[in-house]
Amino acid sequence: MSEIVKRPQTLPEVRPTDVGRLEPVRTQTVTFEGPGETLHLESGQTLHPITVAYETYGELNERRDNAVLVCHALSGDAHAAGYYGLERDEKPGWWDILIGPGKPLDTRKYFVICSNFLGGCKGTTGPSSINPATGKPYGMDFPFYTVKDMVQVQRRLLKHLGVPRLLVVIGGSLGGMQVLQWAISFPEMVRGAIPIASTARLSPQAIAFNEVARQAIMSDPEWNGGDYSLDDQPERGLGLARMIGHITYLSEQAMLRKFSRRYINDQGRSFCLTKDFQVESYLHHQGSSFVRRFDANTYLYITRAMDYFDLEAAYGRISTAFSGCRSSFLVVSFTSDWLFPPDQSRELVQALRRVGLDVSYCNIESDQGHDAFLLPGHRMGDVVSGFLERLARVDAS
Amino acid sequence: MSEIVKRPQTLPEVRPTDVGRLEPVRTQTVTFEGPGETLHLESGQTLHPITVAYETYGELNERRDNAVLVCHALSGDAHAAGYYGLERDEKPGWWDILIGPGKPLDTRKYFVICSNFLGGCKGTTGPSSINPATGKPYGMDFPFYTVKDMVQVQRRLLKHLGVPRLLVVIGGSLGGMQVLQWAISFPEMVRGAIPIASTARLSPQAIAFNEVARQAIMSDPEWNGGDYSLDDQPERGLGLARMIGHITYLSEQAMLRKFSRRYINDQGRSFCLTKDFQVESYLHHQGSSFVRRFDANTYLYITRAMDYFDLEAAYGRISTAFSGCRSSFLVVSFTSDWLFPPDQSRELVQALRRVGLDVSYCNIESDQGHDAFLLPGHRMGDVVSGFLERLARVDAS
Repeated sequence: MSEIVKRPQTLPEVRPTDVGRLEPVRTQTVTFEGPGETLHLESGQTLHPITVAYETYGELNERRDNAVLVCHALSGDAHAAGYYGLERDEKPGWWDILIGPGKPLDTRKYFVICSNFLGGCKGTTGPSSINPATGKPYGMDFPFYTVKDMVQVQRRLLKHLGVPRLLVVIGGSLGGMQVLQWAISFPEMVRGAIPIASTARLSPQAIAFNEVARQAIMSDPEWNGGDYSLDDQPERGLGLARMIGHITYLSEQAMLRKFSRRYINDQGRSFCLTKDFQVESYLHHQGSSFVRRFDANTYLYITRAMDYFDLEAAYGRISTAFSGCRSSFLVVSFTSDWLFPPDQSRELVQALRRVGLDVSYCNIESDQGHDAFLLPGHRMGDVVSGFLERLARVDAS
Repeated sequence: MSEIVKRPQTLPEVRPTDVGRLEPVRTQTVTFEGPGETLHLESGQTLHPITVAYETYGELNERRDNAVLVCHALSGDAHAAGYYGLERDEKPGWWDILIGPGKPLDTRKYFVICSNFLGGCKGTTGPSSINPATGKPYGMDFPFYTVKDMVQVQRRLLKHLGVPRLLVVIGGSLGGMQVLQWAISFPEMVRGAIPIASTARLSPQAIAFNEVARQAIMSDPEWNGGDYSLDDQPERGLGLARMIGHITYLSEQAMLRKFSRRYINDQGRSFCLTKDFQVESYLHHQGSSFVRRFDANTYLYITRAMDYFDLEAAYGRISTAFSGCRSSFLVVSFTSDWLFPPDQSRELVQALRRVGLDVSYCNIESDQGHDAFLLPGHRMGDVVSGFLERLARVDAS
């Protein structure tokens, strides 16, 4: 294992006026390249070496029992919180609403870790990484990977960081799938598990949406069987895939509230085939900004890893999957989420209760759809802090 | 107006054993090409000449008061019922469950008319028709048309057929939009109106789905700005558009019932990026069969006509749109339809009641989603016959 990582400097004592803003953060990497570090994947294939990009916020305490692992969703990355610099126009990490001094995942108390998952395109080895065997990006030569494989790699990262167990593992959507797999794969390591807007397995409808998004990419001639140069992506296909995805991340109500049937032009319809309604313009913007920060092949692989995640198929019954777990669970869903609907969270809760686990459930009122877990304006933060406080009380008593 | 039409022969007296099967039917055409027959479209553009493809079933009675106009949806055509030949493997017209001797639209009693709407690609003048000015298909030179324009052309067809008024105008989805426009544009001609699984205007979510479908077509290089040869279509783009559409036509429940998460291969997941789940295979089949029977440019125009249909924007309030109507209405929706959800039908009902119109509403229990209106297995037929019988009773009393 090559150590190309420096642990972050000890953060200065936080004054009350600093609440809400982390010191500048940075993404670090570690590469697992030792002879015994070949990763054996669920698909039967192997991968070696593996670089992992990650960030940490806060400090691991002496008892090493205050670590929180944050798992990101499809388009996320290791940059979960804070700012790289001090420019005021910079966007913070993707879950900055939840992570920082004085926030629910309070970095004055917890050592928070987030890594780009295996097969991502934000610093961790994935389809857009250079294949050492060819000197070119892996592309379609990258092996298939699953949520279980992602968790194996995160386990290695924790070992590298000297983290023996997790106070909490938390994530939304695909991140929630990783949370569930953590509690199943490493029950002795996970004190608390918080799957948010997630599921034991996607519905066929969600698989169908993933499939049309993949087809959008693979139908783009620039995709070229996955063999494209990274600065010459299948932009139209990837942008279209993101547009399709975005419809499923928003609720019908949120679309009505944000755009209604308003036209871009005040004079009403312009008799043109595209970008006449505000909702169309919004989707195009989402598509074109996405292609600047994401890789098309990676999108194909990750959506497939989501499709294949299925605790029922893997363990016979969902409850059987959890029968070896020891964690306390907080399951969170959002009322208007139709991609990972609340019923799927309820099914999780029932399975967890069936095997006698400690589980809390909160279905949060929101019109923001699946995207709610990334957005402010609802009770998610309070629910998460409450769960963490209860864990602390229970463990102290 | 060129008369290239023969009225169908008088059908033989129907014996009870014939119930349920029409005599062989055929599609006829009429061309409006006289100097005064230029169509002035809502977009401000004009069109001339216009050929209309249509079918009729049953006979117009002497009082000429038994005509039923059937309006088709996005991918429909004039062939609403019966068979062209007597081959047993031939599929009947798209609404054969509803139209025929002894069926709810009983061709022993009613004279049923269905035409391919303006701008279609099944015999009526549309983007795939030859532009007489160039000798090539119109493509993107075809003018924009609206639901109101479609209804104007249907009005001409009725005049040609010698039909002064309609006992009922009926249709689902985009067909239902035409029904509403008929009752508004020609109130004195419409005794009863039956909009099924329809709306006064699409939601922004439905517009968003139409937009990604259009983008799928326009992103296909074979589309070539709409300039393609008709036997060399942008097949991948059009097929993908249809796949996207099909997700929205089915409900989540119907997908679960039909496909669940089953794999094509009995051994489970094959670690491939596409066509591993049955639901994927189904969508691909829908896509590839669609490209054999539909035109890509036409898909762009028709979805835009749907987007632009908006009774609220056109008349200030939905109820104002109906203030001049005289028809009795039967509004039908399906519980699991999330593309044209029941709430939109309820909104129609409220608007109709607000202006004092006679309106019945039926929200039919079904897990088949939007497609339910095309499928058997629910009460739609009974509800339609009941409405027709009530109209007859009221008019006789």
